[in-house]
Amino acid sequence: MLYTPKEEIESRLDKVRALMEKASMDGAFFHYKIDYYYLSGTMQDAFLFVPLMGKPILFVKRDLRRARRESPLEEVIPVKSFKDIGSIASGMKRIGFQLDVIPYTMMMKFKEIVGDVEYIDVSPLTKSLRKVKSPFEIRIMEKAAAIAKQVYEAVPHLLKEGMREIELGGLLEGLAKSLGHEGLLRVRSLNYEAYTWHILSGRTGSIVSQSDSPMGGLGLSPAFPVGASMKRMRRGEPILVDFGICYQGYQADQTRMYAIGHMPEEFARAYEVCREIQYRVLDKAVEGAISSELFQYGIQLAKDAGYGDFYLGYGHHKVSFLGHGIGLELAEFPYITARHDYPIEEGAVFAIEPKMVFPKKGACGVENTVIMEKGRYRILTKMDEAIVVV
Amino acid sequence: MLYTPKEEIESRLDKVRALMEKASMDGAFFHYKIDYYYLSGTMQDAFLFVPLMGKPILFVKRDLRRARRESPLEEVIPVKSFKDIGSIASGMKRIGFQLDVIPYTMMMKFKEIVGDVEYIDVSPLTKSLRKVKSPFEIRIMEKAAAIAKQVYEAVPHLLKEGMREIELGGLLEGLAKSLGHEGLLRVRSLNYEAYTWHILSGRTGSIVSQSDSPMGGLGLSPAFPVGASMKRMRRGEPILVDFGICYQGYQADQTRMYAIGHMPEEFARAYEVCREIQYRVLDKAVEGAISSELFQYGIQLAKDAGYGDFYLGYGHHKVSFLGHGIGLELAEFPYITARHDYPIEEGAVFAIEPKMVFPKKGACGVENTVIMEKGRYRILTKMDEAIVVV
Repeated sequence: MLYTPKEEIESRLDKVRALMEKASMDGAFFHYKIDYYYLSGTMQDAFLFVPLMGKPILFVKRDLRRARRESPLEEVIPVKSFKDIGSIASGMKRIGFQLDVIPYTMMMKFKEIVGDVEYIDVSPLTKSLRKVKSPFEIRIMEKAAAIAKQVYEAVPHLLKEGMREIELGGLLEGLAKSLGHEGLLRVRSLNYEAYTWHILSGRTGSIVSQSDSPMGGLGLSPAFPVGASMKRMRRGEPILVDFGICYQGYQADQTRMYAIGHMPEEFARAYEVCREIQYRVLDKAVEGAISSELFQYGIQLAKDAGYGDFYLGYGHHKVSFLGHGIGLELAEFPYITARHDYPIEEGAVFAIEPKMVFPKKGACGVENTVIMEKGRYRILTKMDEAIVVV
Repeated sequence: MLYTPKEEIESRLDKVRALMEKASMDGAFFHYKIDYYYLSGTMQDAFLFVPLMGKPILFVKRDLRRARRESPLEEVIPVKSFKDIGSIASGMKRIGFQLDVIPYTMMMKFKEIVGDVEYIDVSPLTKSLRKVKSPFEIRIMEKAAAIAKQVYEAVPHLLKEGMREIELGGLLEGLAKSLGHEGLLRVRSLNYEAYTWHILSGRTGSIVSQSDSPMGGLGLSPAFPVGASMKRMRRGEPILVDFGICYQGYQADQTRMYAIGHMPEEFARAYEVCREIQYRVLDKAVEGAISSELFQYGIQLAKDAGYGDFYLGYGHHKVSFLGHGIGLELAEFPYITARHDYPIEEGAVFAIEPKMVFPKKGACGVENTVIMEKGRYRILTKMDEAIVVV
């Protein structure tokens, strides 16, 4: 088991306290496991209290022994219910809670216990910190990307004519798990679930669904209406494989194109345009362009190449992002979108995914997980980008 | 694609309106996809408004066309943001919201739009309805159980000495998907994630973790500290396979025991006690005993057989339930627990799982998904219960 080192946790806590001070918070509770894992090193059933002054306390419901082994924090104590937190916040006036994710009823219970103070959403602070990855985190993400490479390299050995999309998804899932993939991808949402088996062939690549993706896929039922379906893959169809990997809690995202027999010329050409957009947007990110400029630049490049109607989806189904930060969550800061105005910082890790969707025909595109470092970009997902025809 | 029939949806809506009337609600919003799927037939990105009088309205963010195809509701309309709901609730005084799951910030936004009314948690209503399954739902659950049987029957062909727990989990996952398994299990929780590959061998069966389970397993990392691990499976160890299946949104839960070479006598004996407890508790449920009586009866039987120290976990790690309802969620009503006082109703579907954990040695147990019908119980997960030695 790989544990998060003490210095790593201490450095994150120092940074979050600095942000808390700036936001005039006297203390903050972290209930969402993604964030208390980031600040404590454990995902056991617990919640974390970080006072501006004094030691953080991890309240553990289950399992205390594992939490103590995994977390370098000094105060890791058992708790049975919220009520046990007692007077920990007494005298405090402004307290942070993760208001973006904490369920309403749970928050009301906390308010009863903590009392009449000002409650502030603390999630923007950890979201902002998690945007930039440490060398420790980058090493883990490199390993996640290396697993992705192994999985994608197996596709030509597994893909057969007439195989169902979901069958290929299941085989890749099995291989990925044997290499350390943790099976679940994580997103910060009440209703949106991430999953790994996003494999679309021919027409299913043009099917839109509930997910914020240019291509949702058919899925298996109205109760799971996204990703791979029971459709059989045929010769001469574009087959898009977008299969995320999770290793030690950190994710890598990648898309590559496959075909059986041959790739239709239309998709091969569009795919080259996607690759071109990817590299030109990355170059511009290195120059310091802000998120919205990068997003608009991608659109301009697609239009110039004659693909404006298909880029990032068709008609009113276009999505509003070209890239998303990635780490403990599948979508985090920084985003490449029209709505954000920051440059891509040194140390940021993000997925960039120019994709094209052709109504009733299918989809193509490329995606890589990339880090900005030493004033350049470096692609972590090192799998070759050439279309693979089996 | 199998769509929920119109009569099915209408019958559910009639029932929820009857409960709303009893609770003096003028209308209710359903935001959590499990419940609006139950009441509308679609899991597209949407939310549902059910007025006590008048037609329900499904507000769809994405994708409208799919939502219209999947849902038999008449009013399925596009919406861009919460603000678009306008004056839909004007004149209403008591409005239901799913306060147990809706994030605090989202609820605050709604309050701003809907205004000064009384907000009541509507989730208990759908939870109560979903306890009893319709013939339509039972047919789907039978199919989920049939997939589980096929998957479990493959174990002896896949399990090899020296194989890692997670490797077997991945192979079963791949097979299950090819048969229609949807990959994700669903639970109503901010932090708890369900997963399918709960495969524990020897000592890992005695490892406790964050999950509310007698045996959490080692998992792959502190960021995924549950279920199958990288541990290699050896001769003469108890191997517990607890692999859930999701088909058309409905789940089946099942546990069986395997061993390579031979099953240690201690575990074979304890397993027989688990089976005995299962059948005797089921008989008592048929007689009409209430949940807490069933739970205590199981404990008594375990004690009488000399297994009180190991039944449902050891030491202070014992769990407080012997069974859980199952359907669109992995854990729903009815529960078999000391804290609940209802009998198991006609039409209820639940998983019963007597298990034993021996510190540092491992775990064993049996689990089936069962329906109460025509005054008897019927096991849906028809896989033979004998220990399989390969």
